Formats: sequence, structure tokens, C-alpha cells
Amino acid sequence: MSLPLSDLIHRTDASPVVAAQALTKGRVFPADKPLLNVSQAAPVAPPPQGLRAEIARAALEDDDTHLYGAVLGDASLRSALAQTTSSLYHAQIAPEEVAITSGANQAFTAVMTTLAAPGDEVILPTPWYFNHKMWCDMAGVRAVPLPTGDDLLPDLESAARLIGPRTRAIVLISPNNPGGVEYPSDLLSHFFALARDRGIALILDETYRDFRADDAPPHVLFRQPDWRGTFIHLYSFSKVYRLTGHRVGAIIADRGRLAEVEKVLDTVTICPSRLGQRAASYGLLHLNDWVASERAEIIARGVAMRDGFHVLAAKGWRLAGLGGFFAYVEHPFDIPSDEVVARLVNEAHILALPGTAFRPKGDPRGARELRLAFANLDRDHFPELFARLAEFEA
Amino acid sequence: MSLPLSDLIHRTDASPVVAAQALTKGRVFPADKPLLNVSQAAPVAPPPQGLRAEIARAALEDDDTHLYGAVLGDASLRSALAQTTSSLYHAQIAPEEVAITSGANQAFTAVMTTLAAPGDEVILPTPWYFNHKMWCDMAGVRAVPLPTGDDLLPDLESAARLIGPRTRAIVLISPNNPGGVEYPSDLLSHFFALARDRGIALILDETYRDFRADDAPPHVLFRQPDWRGTFIHLYSFSKVYRLTGHRVGAIIADRGRLAEVEKVLDTVTICPSRLGQRAASYGLLHLNDWVASERAEIIARGVAMRDGFHVLAAKGWRLAGLGGFFAYVEHPFDIPSDEVVARLVNEAHILALPGTAFRPKGDPRGARELRLAFANLDRDHFPELFARLAEFEA
Repeated sequence: MSLPLSDLIHRTDASPVVAAQALTKGRVFPADKPLLNVSQAAPVAPPPQGLRAEIARAALEDDDTHLYGAVLGDASLRSALAQTTSSLYHAQIAPEEVAITSGANQAFTAVMTTLAAPGDEVILPTPWYFNHKMWCDMAGVRAVPLPTGDDLLPDLESAARLIGPRTRAIVLISPNNPGGVEYPSDLLSHFFALARDRGIALILDETYRDFRADDAPPHVLFRQPDWRGTFIHLYSFSKVYRLTGHRVGAIIADRGRLAEVEKVLDTVTICPSRLGQRAASYGLLHLNDWVASERAEIIARGVAMRDGFHVLAAKGWRLAGLGGFFAYVEHPFDIPSDEVVARLVNEAHILALPGTAFRPKGDPRGARELRLAFANLDRDHFPELFARLAEFEA
Repeated sequence: MSLPLSDLIHRTDASPVVAAQALTKGRVFPADKPLLNVSQAAPVAPPPQGLRAEIARAALEDDDTHLYGAVLGDASLRSALAQTTSSLYHAQIAPEEVAITSGANQAFTAVMTTLAAPGDEVILPTPWYFNHKMWCDMAGVRAVPLPTGDDLLPDLESAARLIGPRTRAIVLISPNNPGGVEYPSDLLSHFFALARDRGIALILDETYRDFRADDAPPHVLFRQPDWRGTFIHLYSFSKVYRLTGHRVGAIIADRGRLAEVEKVLDTVTICPSRLGQRAASYGLLHLNDWVASERAEIIARGVAMRDGFHVLAAKGWRLAGLGGFFAYVEHPFDIPSDEVVARLVNEAHILALPGTAFRPKGDPRGARELRLAFANLDRDHFPELFARLAEFEA
């Protein structure tokens, strides 16, 4: 390619999901040992029939679903999400404090574009979410790793020490991707106070919120009278209603911030998919019971994961984190995780992501770790998953 | 707002479409003098019934339309667009040279992210498309204006003089937004040669291609054996199939470039709307005759615009450019265009965009100009549009 290539994009890694999918591309796995795909956190079944029928009805009857909508999203969806969120967190959130985005990744990139310019810094606990790191790299923003301990929870004092004059935000994800761990409400309150005191943003990505094992509200941040000066919440409709193909996410933040976000969204995508927004609205209004049963199922899969893990523990594996859609594990082998992943495809017909995708280059922990998006698997596949992993030798 | 705000986003103007819409928000216009909205280039009618039925069918029957797809788009749509484009331009374009995006704006931002880093420069003829300028501002890339003459066509020698060591691309739009003018094939060939010789990219946004008055292919750039080293084509399915609410656009470029684009798309939106892609595929495969009649109608509206303009010319207005969805005009008043726009809403019930939205700050021409997205209006509204504009005094 003779054309210029931005140094920033050149130094940005390719998506590990794309790289992982390349490992199985064009391959056929035998019926008696099919591929177990635990690489991407994505529902594998379609949304419930009522929601599909509503999309079909809207496509046929509602002209405006095919035409441009408001940049910050449809008023009805902003209002419905404000109400649901207010209720869940026992808080008062206005529709004007909600923006709808083309997925939670765009929510993150739009918010960050308003906060950080090239040369600025953002603190990300490690293991981190690779798309957050990729945005930092391509935007010229320095991703400052905040190493976590064996429990995968970030430490407040360590975070405080990393804040410098160019720091613009701390980004947390709970339940965590890739670590699975649910951040305790108290920990989130402490991070809020730290960010507020230091005049930086606390961004919390709650894409997997609806699958928490805990029944209490995820946090009390929306109940802080001054939350709008510090806290920015990111959400996704993709996992909870199985809408990954529609690209609908959200930001909840101060109105002034959303006026800046509006510039970014207008420039990049103009508006989110109108049908996707209809689907999300339908979910908020009609699928509470269905979500409750989905949540119970995902939690049961998590229990099955924890209970079954002893087979692997006996072989030297360690379960570092579990929750949401993910198990984050340490393997016992003397080869790096990307080799383990490649050999698992060939020998065990399992597709996982290597820990190196979630760690800074040179961090030796990544070589020992794998992320298993177990929520993609039916519970009857779990014994098979454990058996194949236990059998695997490297 | 106490939180940090990026200097770059702070210096980025708000979208003029959002600002224009604010002028009419909450207002009710009388039935005998309804609002004539020529502000946004957007179909106001829904797509044809067959396409709507296909979206509804897919939503109900095809599970995968609700789930993540490939980052660069569905293979079937990439293949269909490669074929259509090859046929239209008498060229050989492979499906792997096509990427599907969440609209043509995202196509532009993704391509530019791979080409230009902060501090780099990109050449944009003026009047420019405001979202291109907004991206440059928020990305820290310098938009270098290339003034055009009375015919709104960019001059090759002037462009050559603007190319410096940090220049990464020249971005052209044909038919032009906001100018309406169709760039002659020869002019595009000359710009291609200039870009190739200077080692920069030539990006051509052809969002309004399907409404050209000329029957010949838009250009011969895809027939250059070395096009992949210079030329990047952007396209939109939004206008031609009335899919603005679905967000589907495309990039045609060298495969190596698309591997870099894939990083950006994965980070920002993961994949384009699956139903939107189905709709676009349906359009390419089934709507050729419908598009031909749409094109004839838009061309007829253009003719009505040109023919009716004499009423305004007699009052001192000038028609600077006409084509695609747009008329770009000079008004005869001694007040700046943003005041003209505000008064047109109040007095004439017409919503247009001011020339200042398309010109660098301080360029006096913007104050004299308006963009009229006439394609939004039925032909029976044209006499009323002209009558109200001719009556308006400032």
C-alpha cells in the first residue's frame, strides 16, 4: 500500500475477536465434536418472538423507522431508559440525561472524544477490554494500566498514584469484561469520590449489569447529588435483549456533556438505527419477566462453571474471575496463551480468547490467562467443555 | 460542567442540522402555510413496500439478522455492491475491496482515521460538508480549505499548491454536498493523477451518485490499473433506497487499507446493522427499476428548480450550483445568512441551512449563501417555495 498510514492506527492492534475468528474460518468441525465457541460475548439465539414481531410491524407500518431520527436518540427510548434506570438505582434521571448510541462501544468512544485529546491519559484496570485500549491507541490517548490483584479488583490507592496532570478519566467495567467479577458498590463509591476529588471523570460501563448475581442495586452513584460532575454511565441493549446485530447502547451523563457527545455522534453515525431503538424500547416496556428468566439462566451457567471447575483445578488451572458472561482463568501450561488458544481450536475444538488480548504488551500474566465467554454455551455443553479442557495437554 | 472537556471537541462546531432543527422545535405551523423543510438531505417518504416486507420477513425468520455480523459487513452485501459498482464503472472490484459501514459519515471517519493523525492535513474544497470539517476539528487534523470559483468546481493548480508534507488526502464529493454540482469525469481524473503523483489519497464521496443527470459513468478512476494505491470511494445506501434510519454506507478501497479500517469499525460499532444490510442487499438486487424512476423524479425536481429560479434571479438571487439533492444559492440581502435562515423560518416558514455552515469562519461568502435541499420537496410545492422566497424581504 503506497498511501500514507497513520502511525496511530499502525500501532493499534487488530481486534482479537477478528483474529480468533480467523482461526476457525473455513474449517468444518465433526458432528461428534463440534466447535465450542467461547470467544465472543454474544447471545447465540435470537430475541424473543414478541420483540421480533414488533420490529416487523414497525418496519411495515411505521414510516419513520426508515428515516433519520434525532442524533441523541428517539425521545421515547430516552424516556423509557431514564425511567428504568431511575427505578433500578433509586435515583432521578431525566430523559435529557440519556443519549442513545450505536452500541456501547460507540458510547465509550463518543464520551472519550469529549474528554481526552491526543497526549491525555486514561486509567484502565488490567486485564482491560481490548476495544477500550484500541480506541486509546488510535486516538493518541495514553492508556495507563492499573494492575489488579488475584481477585481482579482495582485498588484505590494504586489508582490515586496513577493520576497525573493529563489524566482525564478512570474507566471501570462491572460486571467486568474480561474478568467477570462484579465490583462491590462500596468500591465504586470510593472510586467516585477519588475521581470527584481529582476533577476527572469516572466512566462505568455496565453492559452486563442485567446478569449480576447480586439483587441489590449495582451502586449508589446516581444517588450522589453531585454525580453529574463526575460520573458517566454506559449501557448496552445488546446482551439483555439479544440485539447485538442492531447496535443500540446508551450514555447517561450531564446534559452539557451530552451536548458535546452530540457533535461526535452526528459526525460519525448521525443517528442510531431506528428499528434497533424500537426493539430496545419494546424490551424495556415488555420483557421484564423474560429478562428475569434469562438472568436466572446465565447465573445458573455461572454456578455450573464454578462447580465444574474442580476438574480443571485438579489439573492446575485457576478460576480468577467469574460473573456476567465471563470466566477469566489461568492455564497451567508452559506455552503462551495465544499458542494455547490455537492448539485448543485444533485439538479440543474450543475457541477462546488469550489473556494477551487483555494485557499490556510485555505483561507476563497475559501469557498465562484465557477468557471463556461461557454464557454463550447451553448448560448441557458444560460437561463437554470441562472434559475437553481437562484432557488437553500442552 | 466541572469535568475536563477536550479542547478539540470544544473548538468543534455543533451540527448545523441540529441547530437548524432547534429553530422549529416545538413550533406549530398553520395548515395553510406549512413548514417547507429544505434543511437536511433526507428522503421524507419511506422505502418501497417490497423492501419493507423483506426487512419484516428477515426480522421474523432469519435469526442471524439480530446477532453480531462480520466487522466489515455481510459477505452477501459486499459481493452485491462489488458487482453493481464494477458494472456501473466498467471495472473489476472484488468483494474483499468493499467494506460496509454504519452510514457514509462513518465510512469517511474510519478511512480518515487510518490516513491522518493529529497535526496532519486534509484538503477540502469549500463550500465543504460540515461533518467532514467537524471530524477534522475533533480529531486534531487540519482541514485546509480549497476555495472554488463561481462554478463551485475545485481548481487543480490551487490544490497542488496546498499540498504540503503533512497533507494526507484530498476529499471530493460528487455530486457535491452542499454545492449540488456534478464533477466532470476529466476533473476527477486530473485530481487522481495529482494525488497519485504526490503520494496522498484521493477520497471521493459519491453519496448522491444515483441521482446524477449524466448517463455516463461518473468517472474512470476504478479503471486505472493503480487505483488501489490512491483512490478511496465512499458510498451510501441511505438516499437511494430511503434508508437513512438504518445507517448503511460503504467504502471501496485497497484490501490493506480495509484491514486498518476494520480496527476502527470494530472499536466504534463492531458491525453495521444487520437488518439495514439486508435492506441494502434487497435494494441492489430488486430495485433497479424503482431507482430509475426515483432518479427521474429527482432530476425533474432539479429542472423545476432551475426553471423556476428566474423569479428569484429577478430579485437578485443567484443559483450557484444545482444537482443531486441540492441547490446552493446566493441571497441578495444585506444581513448574514444565519439571520436570513432564522427570519425565513418565522416569516416564510422555510427551513434552510446558512452558507456559514459550509465555509471556514471569516470567509465572507458564507454570509451570502444558503443550501436548499430541494429533493425533499414534492414538485407541487415548488411554486410555493419560490413564491415565499420571492416575497421575502430583509
